[in-house]
Amino acid sequence: MSGLAGPKLGALRAALRRAEAGGLLVSDAVNMRYLAGSSDASWVLVTGRTAAVMPFGLSEHAFRSSLWAPWRVLKPGEVWKALEGLLRADRVVRLAYEAHRLSVTGERDLRRRLRTIALPVPTTGLVEGVRETKTAVELAVMKRAGAITGEMAVRLPRMLRPGMTEREAAVMIDCAMRRMGADGPGFETIMLFGPKTALPHGRPGDVRLKPGSLVLVDFGARVDGYQSDCTRVFVCGRPTARQSATYLRVLKAYRSGRRMVGPGVAAGAVDRAARAALGKMSVRFIHGLGHGVGLEIHEGPRLAMGVKAPLCRGQVVTVEPGVYWPGWGGFRIEDTVLVTASGHRSLTGEPPSRLTSTG
Amino acid sequence: MSGLAGPKLGALRAALRRAEAGGLLVSDAVNMRYLAGSSDASWVLVTGRTAAVMPFGLSEHAFRSSLWAPWRVLKPGEVWKALEGLLRADRVVRLAYEAHRLSVTGERDLRRRLRTIALPVPTTGLVEGVRETKTAVELAVMKRAGAITGEMAVRLPRMLRPGMTEREAAVMIDCAMRRMGADGPGFETIMLFGPKTALPHGRPGDVRLKPGSLVLVDFGARVDGYQSDCTRVFVCGRPTARQSATYLRVLKAYRSGRRMVGPGVAAGAVDRAARAALGKMSVRFIHGLGHGVGLEIHEGPRLAMGVKAPLCRGQVVTVEPGVYWPGWGGFRIEDTVLVTASGHRSLTGEPPSRLTSTG
Repeated sequence: MSGLAGPKLGALRAALRRAEAGGLLVSDAVNMRYLAGSSDASWVLVTGRTAAVMPFGLSEHAFRSSLWAPWRVLKPGEVWKALEGLLRADRVVRLAYEAHRLSVTGERDLRRRLRTIALPVPTTGLVEGVRETKTAVELAVMKRAGAITGEMAVRLPRMLRPGMTEREAAVMIDCAMRRMGADGPGFETIMLFGPKTALPHGRPGDVRLKPGSLVLVDFGARVDGYQSDCTRVFVCGRPTARQSATYLRVLKAYRSGRRMVGPGVAAGAVDRAARAALGKMSVRFIHGLGHGVGLEIHEGPRLAMGVKAPLCRGQVVTVEPGVYWPGWGGFRIEDTVLVTASGHRSLTGEPPSRLTSTG
Repeated sequence: MSGLAGPKLGALRAALRRAEAGGLLVSDAVNMRYLAGSSDASWVLVTGRTAAVMPFGLSEHAFRSSLWAPWRVLKPGEVWKALEGLLRADRVVRLAYEAHRLSVTGERDLRRRLRTIALPVPTTGLVEGVRETKTAVELAVMKRAGAITGEMAVRLPRMLRPGMTEREAAVMIDCAMRRMGADGPGFETIMLFGPKTALPHGRPGDVRLKPGSLVLVDFGARVDGYQSDCTRVFVCGRPTARQSATYLRVLKAYRSGRRMVGPGVAAGAVDRAARAALGKMSVRFIHGLGHGVGLEIHEGPRLAMGVKAPLCRGQVVTVEPGVYWPGWGGFRIEDTVLVTASGHRSLTGEPPSRLTSTG
């Protein structure tokens, strides 16, 4: 992890200057993990001069072995006193905190303890904003996660056998990804057979795979905390004409969306392009086209109707059009793509060009 | 899950009366999962008459299929309007919220929206307090999780082979537990070989198992969201005299602690009994004896020095004395036990009576 924090701290300090604050007290676990390499801490403080972490009692060793030189790892224990000392030393008068994450109780304690030292300033999403653009070190890890996921997506149809339950199939791919080097699935694998494919948030259960069943699998490997996200649709045996045609239409929407992904393109325009390619079927597309991926499976930016913010180089987003008919089935195609200088690149491979049959 | 919420709501309403509030707005994800069966919601409201959940857009179906009759599943969308309507209908004047969980931003929105309707009242740990005592339905699930974990602990030494890495061994047991019916490991399996066993928060890596290596594994199956927690120590090949003696001493501390567990016993007294049994070695026991287990791997009550609160029937806690020598090794023995009417019962089996060798 050493070296990771350089560009991150630079970008965060720029955000702090815009917020007219001398420092940021980070309390969100994922944001602490992002900056300091572990979330086993009471808080992380970033000022113009200092980056410091206050570990929980047992985790000091983990921080010492993961952080690079400019970081200060404090002695666990004197939580407030250490913070006061750092703020005084760096002359922080306005201290930003994460108003969307810090609890009411936490804010009250902060205000009481820092009364004569610094004014707490509520901010929202400073670290999350920096997290949207991945560093080279982060991208190296995300490419590994994506490669495992993409390889799994290719192997998958041959591994699925009639008679398997959704749960058995989910266990199979989770374990296969771990043997391929993943730390685990990034989120609970969605493995659905038959009409259950129509539930965007369905959970694998005891339904068995049988000839004619549609298969929808939404999964992703996690490596060093970083996620990947991929959805494929298969059919057990020969597809029907309607199944094949629906797949091709969703694939068209997927490609229309993906083609648009590149720096400077409004996120909403990507969603619109995919939606337009669905034609009348677009009334069945009941969610946004995509979302950022990183330490969390859902983070910024959002690719959804009306989002005007342009995509930027270094962002990693999903493209995932889906259409759902309750009682019949659902089709979704998804990959995790990196916004590059000239366009984009998929980290999780390419979907089959027609509806593929399982083994 | 149906039927689960009966005793839970009763206990929560009693807590609300003590807090002199007419209702509780639940925003913590685990607390929502506890009460309403899923955390895919904006909020959960419990008043004297109503228990209602506001699902996120896509999860309404999941709630409808999991909740029992007294629960109201609202139409997703009108987040605030629906809340206002319920508060007016139930004449809630003082509305408790979770001050330790609700963010500063969330509280500001709540205060602004409910200005003329109800006074937000900060509370802490109301649902968490109820969660400490498990219902019969919860215990049935926790027993399944514990049984898988206990069975795994027995099989484990024969599965570990010289040459395996820590990471390979961790994958092996996580996958074996899933094949035994677990939804996954409840937390990242701690599988450590050799001197790394001295790190209470160590992570599995590329260290290989070799003759003479100590093995420390801290793991637990998760079933329906509920956790279990178990630690075992083994040795590859024949133990040294020092390894054997240290194991027996920790086992003595474990048994001295466990023997004390029962209703009405102060949690701190259990910790003290285990610590006393370690004798001079107790300076190496650098953490508390145990913690509650349920939907979270760490929840109330705490078993630690000075905790005066008595244990109660229906609580599920760990007993886990551990001693650590940096550079040489660590020994910890842990089981998850249920406080019963007359004493306690282990949900995760029994530790071997001497230091066991791996396969």
